[in-house]
Amino acid sequence: MNKRKICVVVTARPSYSRVKTVLSEIKVHPELELQLVIAGSALLDRYGNASDFIRKDGFEAVAKVYMVLEGENPTTMAKTTGLGLMELTNVFFNLKPDAVICIADRFETIATSIAASYQNIPLVHIQGGEVTGNIDEKVRHANTKLADLHLVSNEDARERVIKLGEDPEMVINTGCPSIDLAKQIKNEKSLNFDPLKKYGGVGKKINWEKEYIIIMQHPVTTEYERSREHVMETLFAIKDSQIPAFWFWPNVDAGSDGTSNGIRTFREQENPENIHFFKNMEPLDFLRLLKFSKMLIGNSSVGIRECSFMGVPVINLGKRQDRRLRAQNVTDIAHDRYQILKGIKDVLKRGHYKSSSMYGNGNSGKKIANILATVDLRSSKTITY
Amino acid sequence: MNKRKICVVVTARPSYSRVKTVLSEIKVHPELELQLVIAGSALLDRYGNASDFIRKDGFEAVAKVYMVLEGENPTTMAKTTGLGLMELTNVFFNLKPDAVICIADRFETIATSIAASYQNIPLVHIQGGEVTGNIDEKVRHANTKLADLHLVSNEDARERVIKLGEDPEMVINTGCPSIDLAKQIKNEKSLNFDPLKKYGGVGKKINWEKEYIIIMQHPVTTEYERSREHVMETLFAIKDSQIPAFWFWPNVDAGSDGTSNGIRTFREQENPENIHFFKNMEPLDFLRLLKFSKMLIGNSSVGIRECSFMGVPVINLGKRQDRRLRAQNVTDIAHDRYQILKGIKDVLKRGHYKSSSMYGNGNSGKKIANILATVDLRSSKTITY
Amino acid sequence: MNKRKICVVVTARPSYSRVKTVLSEIKVHPELELQLVIAGSALLDRYGNASDFIRKDGFEAVAKVYMVLEGENPTTMAKTTGLGLMELTNVFFNLKPDAVICIADRFETIATSIAASYQNIPLVHIQGGEVTGNIDEKVRHANTKLADLHLVSNEDARERVIKLGEDPEMVINTGCPSIDLAKQIKNEKSLNFDPLKKYGGVGKKINWEKEYIIIMQHPVTTEYERSREHVMETLFAIKDSQIPAFWFWPNVDAGSDGTSNGIRTFREQENPENIHFFKNMEPLDFLRLLKFSKMLIGNSSVGIRECSFMGVPVINLGKRQDRRLRAQNVTDIAHDRYQILKGIKDVLKRGHYKSSSMYGNGNSGKKIANILATVDLRSSKTITY
Amino acid sequence: MNKRKICVVVTARPSYSRVKTVLSEIKVHPELELQLVIAGSALLDRYGNASDFIRKDGFEAVAKVYMVLEGENPTTMAKTTGLGLMELTNVFFNLKPDAVICIADRFETIATSIAASYQNIPLVHIQGGEVTGNIDEKVRHANTKLADLHLVSNEDARERVIKLGEDPEMVINTGCPSIDLAKQIKNEKSLNFDPLKKYGGVGKKINWEKEYIIIMQHPVTTEYERSREHVMETLFAIKDSQIPAFWFWPNVDAGSDGTSNGIRTFREQENPENIHFFKNMEPLDFLRLLKFSKMLIGNSSVGIRECSFMGVPVINLGKRQDRRLRAQNVTDIAHDRYQILKGIKDVLKRGHYKSSSMYGNGNSGKKIANILATVDLRSSKTITY
Repeated sequence: MNKRKICVVVTARPSYSRVKTVLSEIKVHPELELQLVIAGSALLDRYGNASDFIRKDGFEAVAKVYMVLEGENPTTMAKTTGLGLMELTNVFFNLKPDAVICIADRFETIATSIAASYQNIPLVHIQGGEVTGNIDEKVRHANTKLADLHLVSNEDARERVIKLGEDPEMVINTGCPSIDLAKQIKNEKSLNFDPLKKYGGVGKKINWEKEYIIIMQHPVTTEYERSREHVMETLFAIKDSQIPAFWFWPNVDAGSDGTSNGIRTFREQENPENIHFFKNMEPLDFLRLLKFSKMLIGNSSVGIRECSFMGVPVINLGKRQDRRLRAQNVTDIAHDRYQILKGIKDVLKRGHYKSSSMYGNGNSGKKIANILATVDLRSSKTITY
Repeated sequence: MNKRKICVVVTARPSYSRVKTVLSEIKVHPELELQLVIAGSALLDRYGNASDFIRKDGFEAVAKVYMVLEGENPTTMAKTTGLGLMELTNVFFNLKPDAVICIADRFETIATSIAASYQNIPLVHIQGGEVTGNIDEKVRHANTKLADLHLVSNEDARERVIKLGEDPEMVINTGCPSIDLAKQIKNEKSLNFDPLKKYGGVGKKINWEKEYIIIMQHPVTTEYERSREHVMETLFAIKDSQIPAFWFWPNVDAGSDGTSNGIRTFREQENPENIHFFKNMEPLDFLRLLKFSKMLIGNSSVGIRECSFMGVPVINLGKRQDRRLRAQNVTDIAHDRYQILKGIKDVLKRGHYKSSSMYGNGNSGKKIANILATVDLRSSKTITY
Repeated sequence: MNKRKICVVVTARPSYSRVKTVLSEIKVHPELELQLVIAGSALLDRYGNASDFIRKDGFEAVAKVYMVLEGENPTTMAKTTGLGLMELTNVFFNLKPDAVICIADRFETIATSIAASYQNIPLVHIQGGEVTGNIDEKVRHANTKLADLHLVSNEDARERVIKLGEDPEMVINTGCPSIDLAKQIKNEKSLNFDPLKKYGGVGKKINWEKEYIIIMQHPVTTEYERSREHVMETLFAIKDSQIPAFWFWPNVDAGSDGTSNGIRTFREQENPENIHFFKNMEPLDFLRLLKFSKMLIGNSSVGIRECSFMGVPVINLGKRQDRRLRAQNVTDIAHDRYQILKGIKDVLKRGHYKSSSMYGNGNSGKKIANILATVDLRSSKTITY
Repeated sequence: MNKRKICVVVTARPSYSRVKTVLSEIKVHPELELQLVIAGSALLDRYGNASDFIRKDGFEAVAKVYMVLEGENPTTMAKTTGLGLMELTNVFFNLKPDAVICIADRFETIATSIAASYQNIPLVHIQGGEVTGNIDEKVRHANTKLADLHLVSNEDARERVIKLGEDPEMVINTGCPSIDLAKQIKNEKSLNFDPLKKYGGVGKKINWEKEYIIIMQHPVTTEYERSREHVMETLFAIKDSQIPAFWFWPNVDAGSDGTSNGIRTFREQENPENIHFFKNMEPLDFLRLLKFSKMLIGNSSVGIRECSFMGVPVINLGKRQDRRLRAQNVTDIAHDRYQILKGIKDVLKRGHYKSSSMYGNGNSGKKIANILATVDLRSSKTITY
């Protein structure tokens, strides 16, 4: 009769990919009503306007909120969060959801958490309990302490959230919904689209048909001055490797300007023959591209999650994913062009890994929707110790 | 040479009382420079403009920030926090402090925590690790997860912060600086001022010279509709007791209107002969008044902290201080006029308790200043498990 | 087919009264769709929550926006406006109205004007072109310079807006819609409700049945320190007059605390026998009360507008309505208790005036709705000289 | 003794150039103290961080304010203004200036005007009274209606401000301070720096030594979808002309993405041999470059102001400067590549013009400082008719 209204706040392109199946399953669930809010960099062309993908996928936003301040530095990150908090509070106040879903640990996600919890709306946090080595670490655990229900991606995370003093009954390992997408393409045997034709991008036309690698490198917030330097090491390694490479532009974050700037300078000066750049790709196509690549290089959590399920080898750079639970497919390497180059050669020899279900087996979206429909929602709690 | 700049953000009258000796000790410390920011309800006449007391005490604010939205409901609490976050970010950006101090667990304190931590300014949290039964609970532990250094008030709190995954070296029991003030008046033998003459207030003139009690009752956020009802129980109990009573107006919080409204209605209809109302009092005078009172009734943390050191009996009402570590002086009673009345009679028979140092021994301000001058300040951390 | 969506932003109780018939006429017009936004002090209990009246009158808000900062001083007025601008921008962005209506000249109305005009939404300004002697004066004419269509209340205002460089075709004298309400009760012969019973209020019970006066005094922004002093003069005059008086609480504005504080102090000290206080009243009831009163005293624009049509004598105090076009019913008097007292006596002798249609003849709502349905809406203009 | 504190808010690179001599003259004036606030796009690298130039020129900001929202569309323009209003209010509240200077008519300047005028701080508006054909038009005249003192650039503007109902004594033609800079280099005979060496930039190395032209084209807000199309016409005309050209990147504005995007696409596809791109240049160097160029093409107000004094021919494109008072040096041409190309050839034949003092004679900074030191500052006014 009275459907539970579930408000999901998507503030960035990668977050959307991560919860796409959750949105679908909420939308079709007979006892749930989806209230989708698109905000932050998910609305911005510079970060590959996720808003367009979302509409194409058949979802309609009940509200959109511009909230990202220009500057891409720690000061504008904090102000963006404050602005988002004010606006999302107003959005929730007018939508009156029965629960709000906050996704993971990007800096602005705490705005969602505060706006919901302060208004006594049950707050559901997805992907808490993991460990990394930067500002996300603070944000993620603060989100946990504000949330009422924790839907985590793996057992390790579940134990950590419980250690943080949360009621074990409210901490459920649903697996990561990003794996659901990877499962959808599990049986595909070869890449079913031409990335250059379908997505354009910039840079030299590369011969990717035989083999290619993928790079996705984000700035690390707490040391954002060094992001330019770090990305340079990767760029030189990729250039020297001579392997055809698809490079994905970083998402919004303090220092993305450092990284972007590094890439632009490199392109201008070195004019690399073997690198082609993309801003964005539809989530499934991106996973397909990954699936049939020789490896992923960079510091994206995609390497830790989706790639573990797909068995794609990953060269994980620097500290961004430090201490995040990982399967065998991940090799950690420092920001050093020679070590990266050596790593690439080793991985090429090694080849793909077998699938791991450490981050779920592809049913997370459905599990999450069912929990949302049946769990005893509440907006108050006390630490367990 | 280069003094460490310590920025303290005071957002409410009670917070000021709690850190007054910390401010003094930072101010006189040769290696520290105090940057005092006054914000939120501490600037508002309706909540007993703390700004005036602060100036009289010899402190000068480097910045003031109006940030409280009208409405006193969960929605405006969240928006106030967002506005504060934007403004405090700007204040810190321009002041460039070496560390920021965030006090306790009021809803808007998380604005201080985010503004500092997102800008990579070491964040010092005072009075983390305690347990209560409302929204403060979420805020306090979220502050802990954002903070880099934890200066807690008691051993119980220290252990809890460590359990929350914080590095034990960065969790120090300094005792509560509010006890420092209580220590200053330890040897006074009788009340050295006439509260009616010095502070005016409203309501009937009462004969307090022989005996009197004090009431301080705040709304409980998560059930703010009931705050009116709750305060009514207390008001009837006090009226029936016929004991001269000084009642302190609640501070800003969702529902304070419920409480204030209850008080106003009661005054209009019942015209109580034995209750006199104050908005505010200088912190030391307030402690003096407490020290020589028969008891404190209500749900203020003053009953838990300062009163434990002074041995003043406390009738603690409702759930607001649930699970907060307490000494023998505290008796818990529900929001029921008959139980409260009975409690009052019992306490009157029982009399004062002996001093407990559970919340410190009166040197916290100095300890904190010394730690701030010498500790290895950092703005990055990883959970310990 | 495609109805024009007309978004009306109501930010205060008096603004609502002023446009009530406009709302009704838009709502029933076959070519228009009403998008009502309630914001600012119209949501606050302290200012007589207009939101409740609005709902009772059968209107439903599509969005509500808390935006008033506490402090009631020039600084919080400016910040309130900034906050409102951010939020209303978002509201319009999501509602996509075909035109936005901005009402009159309260400080926060410029937020509506900027949010609409910057987003290229045709802006309709109601009640521009008048003249007063305070901050409203700046706000009103700035609104005019931002607006695309001007629906003014009288010929004098029409000429002034044209002098300000606006295209005469876009400046239309519709009369003031507040007169529409006054027309509705034109034929009533006596007060059809008991104000004390229906609205409660505070203060002594007064014998109003034979004769009574009404007071409505707002602070004057640019000299808000003096508002306490000014209101005291009126209070003493009313007390000395011994005439039964209904006093209406001031609306939100810098200095309302000065005024409110003055009233509170006076009540406490002087305990006036002949004054009863109200916070609010349904608009029609308020007009009825006015219609059958001996006079209105204060500085409200109601004295200039509605009272001119109803022929109610007005003692207009101080500079707030300076230079506003007025009919014979208005007598200007300084903030001086003796002059006010003398004025009261003179007016009592004189009695009511005959109706003036200077501010319209009671069809403004319908005229405005028709214009909105047919006018060539545009969002760009150039000064005419 | 007590110097008048004059707060100048610089929100964009071009505004800085325009008031640079005002800043210098305030700084050295014995009765004035400069409070410089840098905000908005003046802090952003993407728009040629004016902050760096300002510091090099010896000015120090007392406060910096990030306030630009990402998106570059009408919605983010309005929100940026709201955010700026909140923050600037706080800045003025803490700085307590005796007067605030608001510069010209960019969208965010109204934030300065409201923050000052609502706080009863005398507001000085520079460059009011001019006429253009877009949103600036609304902003400029609204600023005029909020301002207390008007320092205009020419007689035409002076008359218009007076027509707008301002007190003639408070409307002073000081000339435009941007002319002061042009005067400083009046006697230079040739370009004393190599723009490619000193400023780098991007694009082909061009042979500018013999002759070159300059392009500066901004998006026009109210038709921002067309900005991409418009800039393309100019790009093709310049390419076809084969004349060495220095192109300056547009400043922040709704649609700058359209313009920037057009430029990027053109570069990628057409790889023009004769165009070199700059983001920014020190103001004096920019004027030097203009002075020795064959002409300026675009829609910048520099063509109307500085170029009139320097006698540099200008091809003014589209409607952005419509109705702005202009000297003989300006030729108006539509956004059409063939007409632009023909215009270029005509201007090359015609050569430079003689200097006009229509926008001042180079002493505006000093005049303005003297006025600020001596004028009767006030923060209240009433329309003159």
